[in-house]
Amino acid sequence: MKRKSKAGRRVVAFQGERGAFSEEAARKLLGSGIEVSPCQRFEDVFRALDLRKVDAAVIPIENTLHGSVHENYDHLLHFHLPIVGETSVRIVHNLMAAPGVPFSKIRRVFSHPVALNQCLDFFAKNPQLEKVTSYDTAGSAKMVMSEGLTDGAAIASSVAAEIYGARILRRSIEDDRQNFTRFFALCRPGDAGRFIARAKKNAQWKTSVVFSTRNVPGSLFRSLSAFALRDLNLAKIESRPLRGKPWEYLFYLDFIGQVDQPECRNALGHLRELADMLRVLGCYPRGD
Amino acid sequence: MKRKSKAGRRVVAFQGERGAFSEEAARKLLGSGIEVSPCQRFEDVFRALDLRKVDAAVIPIENTLHGSVHENYDHLLHFHLPIVGETSVRIVHNLMAAPGVPFSKIRRVFSHPVALNQCLDFFAKNPQLEKVTSYDTAGSAKMVMSEGLTDGAAIASSVAAEIYGARILRRSIEDDRQNFTRFFALCRPGDAGRFIARAKKNAQWKTSVVFSTRNVPGSLFRSLSAFALRDLNLAKIESRPLRGKPWEYLFYLDFIGQVDQPECRNALGHLRELADMLRVLGCYPRGD
Repeated sequence: MKRKSKAGRRVVAFQGERGAFSEEAARKLLGSGIEVSPCQRFEDVFRALDLRKVDAAVIPIENTLHGSVHENYDHLLHFHLPIVGETSVRIVHNLMAAPGVPFSKIRRVFSHPVALNQCLDFFAKNPQLEKVTSYDTAGSAKMVMSEGLTDGAAIASSVAAEIYGARILRRSIEDDRQNFTRFFALCRPGDAGRFIARAKKNAQWKTSVVFSTRNVPGSLFRSLSAFALRDLNLAKIESRPLRGKPWEYLFYLDFIGQVDQPECRNALGHLRELADMLRVLGCYPRGD
Repeated sequence: MKRKSKAGRRVVAFQGERGAFSEEAARKLLGSGIEVSPCQRFEDVFRALDLRKVDAAVIPIENTLHGSVHENYDHLLHFHLPIVGETSVRIVHNLMAAPGVPFSKIRRVFSHPVALNQCLDFFAKNPQLEKVTSYDTAGSAKMVMSEGLTDGAAIASSVAAEIYGARILRRSIEDDRQNFTRFFALCRPGDAGRFIARAKKNAQWKTSVVFSTRNVPGSLFRSLSAFALRDLNLAKIESRPLRGKPWEYLFYLDFIGQVDQPECRNALGHLRELADMLRVLGCYPRGD
């Protein structure tokens, strides 16, 4: 059954607790007026949208330090839910604790293992702090607050601090400032037009496709020629294993251009001649 | 300090407990006479070899269901340890328990989450069994035996059953038979010649490289032309984020051919003209 949205607001699913970086991305992509529907697993996010329990979904697709979120590439193939937007969020980690708990009292720091590993300089400078792994960044802020810890802190986003009422003790403690995550907004096939209509007139466009090639010498090269010969710029290429065909691959490709432009239409027609399978995953305004 | 090997046997590091699939791969790649050195993390495996604590290392690089082991691609870049062999191992999951414990008594099944998720049909047919996650497949066999569980079983390789003295109750319970993992053997730069000398005369060869391109339209296409124009067949391409340059990528590429052959030498020379960075990670006899 569809979650009821107050006052007809859009309901948007994402993975993680309230205050996750995905929530920040959802507000950037779909406006601050959305109602959010946190899910436990990525698959639950796709399923909630597919089963019409929510109106849209926001998923992370790659991070500048860790690379692609491969599980979501697989879900993009299995669910037929078009990409209608992209954005990127700078990952800023903050140390937060219950109001009144000073930094000098903190002994244990809870967060997702990836977040803990992105703050190693901070931990090296503060050897009194023990790293404790938790299932989620925002979830660790929630736990620190609900348990009223007086010697514990969490590493999470500033949005999580706001939601759970935690006080930020140290801002931006991540080792590497070049830490960005790119997110996609997804909707159901029939709704893509309405979502895209929000896009600015002069936006640059991006198109994402997935294809497989015959396993013959030069097949990937010939597939890329469909774009190169038309001066279309690739933004990303990702390979994933083809199930049931060991050591063959699917390719996910993002290029700059809109499917309705003649050169893009021609490139996709050309690629269709060469590929065993080709599907457009979405065409959307390029994110900032 | 280097681990002492009895009777001058080669010491080989891998990640996981004794009986891990990596141990099976190590014996296939380097012979059954090796001495093994299990490590906790992949980074420990690379470091042990780099610090001369072992003579060789074996690492998984990709699986036909899950895709690449991206962490190991990153380590291949940071450590300068040449690839000297490849092989693939079919992943066969077996249910095993202490001798004398019958299948009818089993209530809990321990294994690595990936292994548990690859036996979902088996669990659907046996709803009395609870899945319990463990850090390692072989480690769960070790634990079931050392704790003498009478209602617990593990999912692991037949080699693990042998090593820990467990009895196999159900063989090959994995959902998908097309489940293979590809492994690389690594050595130190000065030792590559000795390792490669073992290769059969008529072996087909493979070469692995990593490169980055200028971020201009068509650069990946032009890079691949170095191989396509010489009819060299690509076996695999993988992209990884370039640290410090958000949304730029490194490409890891495997092609069929030996670096000493003129067409391969020319292809690499051509790629060097086009690439910002190019490194040969290894040239080795193609695995079965």
